[in-house]
Amino acid sequence: MKIAIIGYGNIGKAVEQAVLAAPDMVLSDVYHHNDNLSRIKADVAILCVPTREVPEYAQICVNQGVATVDSFDIHSRIAGLRSELMPLDKAHKTVSIVAAGWDPGSDSVVRSLMQAIAPQGITYTNFGPGRSMGHTVAAKAIEGVHDALSMTIPLGTGVHRRMVYVELEEGADLKRVEKMILKDDYFAHDETHVIAVPSVAALNNVAHGVNLVRSGVSGATHNQRFEFNMTINNPALTGQVMVACARAAVRMKEAGRYGAYTMIELAPIDLLAGEKEDNIRALV
Amino acid sequence: MKIAIIGYGNIGKAVEQAVLAAPDMVLSDVYHHNDNLSRIKADVAILCVPTREVPEYAQICVNQGVATVDSFDIHSRIAGLRSELMPLDKAHKTVSIVAAGWDPGSDSVVRSLMQAIAPQGITYTNFGPGRSMGHTVAAKAIEGVHDALSMTIPLGTGVHRRMVYVELEEGADLKRVEKMILKDDYFAHDETHVIAVPSVAALNNVAHGVNLVRSGVSGATHNQRFEFNMTINNPALTGQVMVACARAAVRMKEAGRYGAYTMIELAPIDLLAGEKEDNIRALV
Repeated sequence: MKIAIIGYGNIGKAVEQAVLAAPDMVLSDVYHHNDNLSRIKADVAILCVPTREVPEYAQICVNQGVATVDSFDIHSRIAGLRSELMPLDKAHKTVSIVAAGWDPGSDSVVRSLMQAIAPQGITYTNFGPGRSMGHTVAAKAIEGVHDALSMTIPLGTGVHRRMVYVELEEGADLKRVEKMILKDDYFAHDETHVIAVPSVAALNNVAHGVNLVRSGVSGATHNQRFEFNMTINNPALTGQVMVACARAAVRMKEAGRYGAYTMIELAPIDLLAGEKEDNIRALV
Repeated sequence: MKIAIIGYGNIGKAVEQAVLAAPDMVLSDVYHHNDNLSRIKADVAILCVPTREVPEYAQICVNQGVATVDSFDIHSRIAGLRSELMPLDKAHKTVSIVAAGWDPGSDSVVRSLMQAIAPQGITYTNFGPGRSMGHTVAAKAIEGVHDALSMTIPLGTGVHRRMVYVELEEGADLKRVEKMILKDDYFAHDETHVIAVPSVAALNNVAHGVNLVRSGVSGATHNQRFEFNMTINNPALTGQVMVACARAAVRMKEAGRYGAYTMIELAPIDLLAGEKEDNIRALV
């Protein structure tokens, strides 16, 4: 399978490593953000551009009949992106896998499985500890903030604490910055602590985690308990998930199943390298 | 979807409860073990017969064009059962889902996902605490044992302890029974403790659990850690998984995707009641 990477930031570099490690893939091209994309020579283009630019880049690729994988992560707009790409993929006889990261992505698979095997109940998704990109960007935008890092701390039952580390600009007032952050819509609904530090760079790291918990009912039997935990390097996992989905995209295309799909619409076996029968023997 | 249940032991009764709780299913018939199965009126027959009888019953149903779900659990023969049923399902334009319990079954899905997102590494499946049917039957077969219960205790890294509770027959010698059990092939390779109790019935319960752990590599990044835990009522979970797979069987059949499949070949969304788009919005 020939893989192209579009966008070469943290995620693009992680995807490159996962493609190089895959026994059944070759890396055809790495396109930087503003490269000419009029003739992509690959089976799949893995889109590592900022999330808001994903729809545009996906269309450029699909119009050439190239399959795409993205890790579009605005939860409320995933179904919309899928619906937009669906007719385009069908028309060009190709496949797009959307929202293929870890959440949305592999976590969505676990949530779906948990709900299938205990249909009545509550699932809690507890994120972290790890950096939230959205909250970090929001904190950086506050006047008087030179640099910021917003860490998401899981408190259980889907409730999170925000630990916001700020490197202040010369002469900025911590009390005033704190007040602005606490008022911001990103932070107004969660327990939030603002802490001044001499260097945000010294704190930064890409570790993250999740704790997914469900207590539910199978048939008429209550108290069925399920839990999924992970502690991971965030871009490395995102890159690997995208590469696994690139493999699934090729297989769906080969089977003539053109269209746009989320990860919960894929058979897990299609994410795996190797022969189907061997994987069934090893994993079932 | 019209569902028939074949076999009405612990699992058959659990399947019945899960079918009755499903918003999109009706229970057509419950066939006891030796009923006449020449005219099954259902979309799917859920096979709740002893595992060794599954191939025979699956063929009876598939020959009538009825889809089947089984929880066949002899790991080494699952690929073989799938290959046997595959041409029959294709010929009769129907679908069989094989090995659809929790292990093999939903655990297989988690193992596949973990391997896809961290392809290099080791997965350990730690079972229990819970009753092992195979070991219990082996202990019961020992001379001098009136009743027995073999509990599987997880010690980590896939190593298990066997706690064997025996109710002795009048005049039987515990030392001799213990020696026979320790020599039996089911127990010879694990740490095994044999304990005499006045009543095995007083200890019996159907709780079980699993702890699936993987430390692996995503791309070039090591120390990616994943864990899946559950504590469950064993027949209730098995029954619910089978019912979820009955739904997937109907959907695969409607899509013209005839054949025999393990759970890792199914899209998780097909296990879920409700509309596809609604589930994507709720779970992705």
